[in-house]
Amino acid sequence: MLKERMAIRKGEWTKPTAGLAPTHVQANLVIVPKKHAYDFLLFCMRNPKSCPLIEVTDAGSYTPVSSAPDADIRTDIPRYRIFRHGKLADEVMDITEEWREDFISFLIGCSFTFENALRAAGIPLRHIENKQNVTMYETNVPCHGAGDFQGNLVVSMRPIRADHVPAAVQITSAFPTMHGAPVQVGYPEKLGIKNLQAPEYGDPVEIKEDEIPVFWACGVTPQLVALQAKIEIMITHAPGHMFITDLLDSEIGR
Amino acid sequence: MLKERMAIRKGEWTKPTAGLAPTHVQANLVIVPKKHAYDFLLFCMRNPKSCPLIEVTDAGSYTPVSSAPDADIRTDIPRYRIFRHGKLADEVMDITEEWREDFISFLIGCSFTFENALRAAGIPLRHIENKQNVTMYETNVPCHGAGDFQGNLVVSMRPIRADHVPAAVQITSAFPTMHGAPVQVGYPEKLGIKNLQAPEYGDPVEIKEDEIPVFWACGVTPQLVALQAKIEIMITHAPGHMFITDLLDSEIGR
Repeated sequence: MLKERMAIRKGEWTKPTAGLAPTHVQANLVIVPKKHAYDFLLFCMRNPKSCPLIEVTDAGSYTPVSSAPDADIRTDIPRYRIFRHGKLADEVMDITEEWREDFISFLIGCSFTFENALRAAGIPLRHIENKQNVTMYETNVPCHGAGDFQGNLVVSMRPIRADHVPAAVQITSAFPTMHGAPVQVGYPEKLGIKNLQAPEYGDPVEIKEDEIPVFWACGVTPQLVALQAKIEIMITHAPGHMFITDLLDSEIGR
Repeated sequence: MLKERMAIRKGEWTKPTAGLAPTHVQANLVIVPKKHAYDFLLFCMRNPKSCPLIEVTDAGSYTPVSSAPDADIRTDIPRYRIFRHGKLADEVMDITEEWREDFISFLIGCSFTFENALRAAGIPLRHIENKQNVTMYETNVPCHGAGDFQGNLVVSMRPIRADHVPAAVQITSAFPTMHGAPVQVGYPEKLGIKNLQAPEYGDPVEIKEDEIPVFWACGVTPQLVALQAKIEIMITHAPGHMFITDLLDSEIGR
C-alpha cells in the first residue's frame, strides 16, 4: 500500500496532506446516507466543474475500488469532520465507530492536480509560496440544484501574471475532470465578489500590479451545499486533510 | 423553438435525425422510474466515456431545463421504444399517454458531435458517405457496474487512414464529455471482437489496406445495460431518432 496512506492509517501522519505523495491525485470526501445519495450525486453531475467526481462507493462499502482498492475510507484520512443537521458536531481521526451500512462516500477532485501542472509550467502560485490556504469566495452564481441540494458556486482565486494567463487557461483546460478551465478572468464584481481582500474561505492574498485575479470552480461548493441542506449526518475530511488515491495526476482527464 | 424540433413535435418529421439541425448537439434518451434512477445515474457516472450525461431531468418533469428548456420529452422525438422487463413492447411517436410522475429522463451524448468535428477536419467517415449506420461491437471489457446495472462496454468502430489516426485521436480528445479519445486503436481481438465483418449493431464496413480500425466507447452501452437489468419499464428513442437539443457542438466539453 502507498506508504503515505499507511502512515495516515497508523496515526503517524495527522497533518494536512499538501505536498504528501506528490503526483498522486488527492480527493475531497463527502459521506452521506443513501437516502440523500441520489440528490447529491445528481447535484455533482449537474455541476461538474465544481464537483468533479473521482469515485462513488457502493452503499456500506468503505473501499474505493477504482481509485485506491486497498484503502479504508474510515481510517485513511488524517482528520474528519462530522456534521449533524448542518452543524459541526465533532472532529476525529477515525470514523470506524460512526460507520453505517447506508453510508455512501463521494470522492471529489481537488485543485492540487492542476496546481502541480501550473507550477511545473513555471507559473508561480503565491498561496503555496506563502504556505497559506488558497483564497475562496462565495459567488452570486447559482448552481444547478438537485432536490434538497441548492446553493451558489464557490470559486478559488489565484493572482496570475497577465502574460501567464493564456497558459494558465490552457493548462487547466487539460484537466476537465479536475475543475478544468477558469470560470472567469478579471471581473470579481460580475461574480458578486465585493472585496477581494475579504474571502469567505482560505487566506487573503496580495494581487500585484501586473497580475489578474483568475477564478476557478471550487470543490468547497458541494460541501457547502450539503451543509446548507442540513441533512441528519454528513462526514467530510477536515480542510486540507485530503484522501490520497492511487491515481496519478497524469492519468486524470483522459 | 428550434424549427426542426417543432416539425418533430407536429409529426411532420418522423425519420432519423442524422443531418437535421447540424451543429446542434443530439442526444440519446433513456427514461427509467425513480426507483432505478440512482443506480442508473451511478452507472453513467462510473462509465463516463460510454455514458456522457448531458442532462438528467427532475422526477416527473418532461422539460430538459438546461439543454432545451422549451422542449417536451414526451413529444419531441420522432420515434420511441418502450421496453417492459427487458423486452421491446411497443414503438410509438408520442409517449404522453405513458408518462408517469416517477419518470426520470437521462439525455446521453451521441457521437454525431465528434463526427462533425472529424469531417470538418477532412477525415472522411465511410458509414456517413455510404449512408449506413456506424459499426458497433459488444466487447469483453466489463463496465464498472452499479446495482442492477452490469454489463460489457459497447464500442463503435470507424476505419481511419493511418496518417489520419493522430488527428482523429486529438480531435475526439477535445470532446471528453462526448465519448472523448478512442478506447483503442488497431487490436480488435484484445477487445474480444473476433470478426470485424460481424458487428452486433449497425452495418459492417469495408476496411481498406491503408486504414486502421479505431474504437470509441459507444452510447449504446447504457441502453444495453439497462435492458439487461430487465427493469419493469424503460423508454428510449428508436435508434437514429435522436433528441435535438439547443446546445451547440462548439459549447460541448468545455
